[in-house]
Amino acid sequence: MAAALTFEHWNPELAERMKARSTQSIDGFLGIQVADFQAGSLVAEFEVRDELVTMIGNIHGGCITAFVDHCLGVIMYPIMPKRSWAATTEFKINLLAPVSEGKVIASAEVVSMSKRQAVVTIQVENQERLVAVAQGTVTIVPPRPPADGAS
Amino acid sequence: MAAALTFEHWNPELAERMKARSTQSIDGFLGIQVADFQAGSLVAEFEVRDELVTMIGNIHGGCITAFVDHCLGVIMYPIMPKRSWAATTEFKINLLAPVSEGKVIASAEVVSMSKRQAVVTIQVENQERLVAVAQGTVTIVPPRPPADGAS
Amino acid sequence: MAAALTFEHWNPELAERMKARSTQSIDGFLGIQVADFQAGSLVAEFEVRDELVTMIGNIHGGCITAFVDHCLGVIMYPIMPKRSWAATTEFKINLLAPVSEGKVIASAEVVSMSKRQAVVTIQVENQERLVAVAQGTVTIVPPRPPADGAS
Amino acid sequence: MAAALTFEHWNPELAERMKARSTQSIDGFLGIQVADFQAGSLVAEFEVRDELVTMIGNIHGGCITAFVDHCLGVIMYPIMPKRSWAATTEFKINLLAPVSEGKVIASAEVVSMSKRQAVVTIQVENQERLVAVAQGTVTIVPPRPPADGAS
Repeated sequence: MAAALTFEHWNPELAERMKARSTQSIDGFLGIQVADFQAGSLVAEFEVRDELVTMIGNIHGGCITAFVDHCLGVIMYPIMPKRSWAATTEFKINLLAPVSEGKVIASAEVVSMSKRQAVVTIQVENQERLVAVAQGTVTIVPPRPPADGAS
Repeated sequence: MAAALTFEHWNPELAERMKARSTQSIDGFLGIQVADFQAGSLVAEFEVRDELVTMIGNIHGGCITAFVDHCLGVIMYPIMPKRSWAATTEFKINLLAPVSEGKVIASAEVVSMSKRQAVVTIQVENQERLVAVAQGTVTIVPPRPPADGAS
Repeated sequence: MAAALTFEHWNPELAERMKARSTQSIDGFLGIQVADFQAGSLVAEFEVRDELVTMIGNIHGGCITAFVDHCLGVIMYPIMPKRSWAATTEFKINLLAPVSEGKVIASAEVVSMSKRQAVVTIQVENQERLVAVAQGTVTIVPPRPPADGAS
Repeated sequence: MAAALTFEHWNPELAERMKARSTQSIDGFLGIQVADFQAGSLVAEFEVRDELVTMIGNIHGGCITAFVDHCLGVIMYPIMPKRSWAATTEFKINLLAPVSEGKVIASAEVVSMSKRQAVVTIQVENQERLVAVAQGTVTIVPPRPPADGAS
């Protein structure tokens, strides 16, 4: 067994604030809420509503992929040094089953973390079924980014 | 050089209808429009508006990943046998640079296609910069799916 | 919690034979051995030897990626209908840390399976550290493949 | 169209030396040769031989994935600052068709590069067919890596 990770910068107050904060942009459109936040793990969810469903009768796959993208960034904030910025660098997702109603719940976990990068895995469930799995990389940008800013 | 692909089911009338059709779900939220449609290639775009921008000043990465997910499916319809269904099975995306204004333009290409699967690559640009690259798999579900329906 | 998967075609005798079988091709070069095989889960390993190490002092990353590719296919054989063929369709891997000595151990798990496809996640460890994580798709080709054979 | 990349550190002498150098580890097992090297682009190849072919009659998929992993690193050396180290951080590959004989040829291209990271796309051909496409991220480790060394 690999040793468990430790998160020296864990900031539970920030995690609580992020659970309570109202969303904006595409996470606001989806209505994403953080349900649970621990050091290196996150549970978030949104509710399927008519507006998300396409004429085929399922929600657009892009709702799930945007949801995963959102979780990849959010999970990082309470475990990074203060004022760092989490840039979702890349991820890969498998969409396993269609979603047509109920809650969509993501469980994310940081499986690797260095000063500059973290790797996160995410499982997405709906009505007791696994509907997506994802794996991605987040770049941790320190408080004063270098002049080129890119990564 | 690999031989060019041919698309025996290419349906230009359907492609024209898809260019004109109004969007719904997350593609409607983003305001995605199909700008050009050829057999096996697609250009689509959306305009950055204030609602998509987060407090950091860039659009949420999830806007780009949902955009890519949408293009992966749309590109398939005019090249599949009629009444088939394109299920985005999986994809991988690298987010290369932040986007804060202007048009976001995706150029998608089918690089491989069999009876059951296609592989699509996508480049996303904004203001003359490459801002994302993606590669994904679409499962082609024939008109009458088997009883298990899953894939 | 998503319901656990069941594997109706599980063939423990085949799993035992695969544990004992000698390897060939790139798996033979690496010296991969199956250490444990359950329905939908697999543990495999190889030993770092001088020939795998590059001038930098670590094994070539390609040893890990070929190892993951191998496990993706092997895990499928005892859970597919007899005489089916498992085609590794795609996968994504994050390489987390260099490997220079000792055993490299992969733990693979089937997280989704339909008649035509399975999704597998893999964790690779070396000396109590997680050194890679991967996620991939396997296409299950039935005993008599269709004439086009591709997928 | 996105602007073309420029590579300020391009070192054609190093590229020539890498074309001539003998391989080791898994690249030596495969017999990988660099056929062409330009700033930001690379063509490499290996020849299918009996030892790579499995009992099914095709080469092991791991040969292709290890080949891609190798190209991801090699392409970086002549375009990085001297004495930097290219760590393949992650990649995704789609295997499109089986390979049973002839040359396997990879064409790699750097599509994005900052001080710390580059994104590379790779197409793999065999006998005029596209047999794999891949997309990956390389971390550029500067000459004196930080104490934690990880990424």
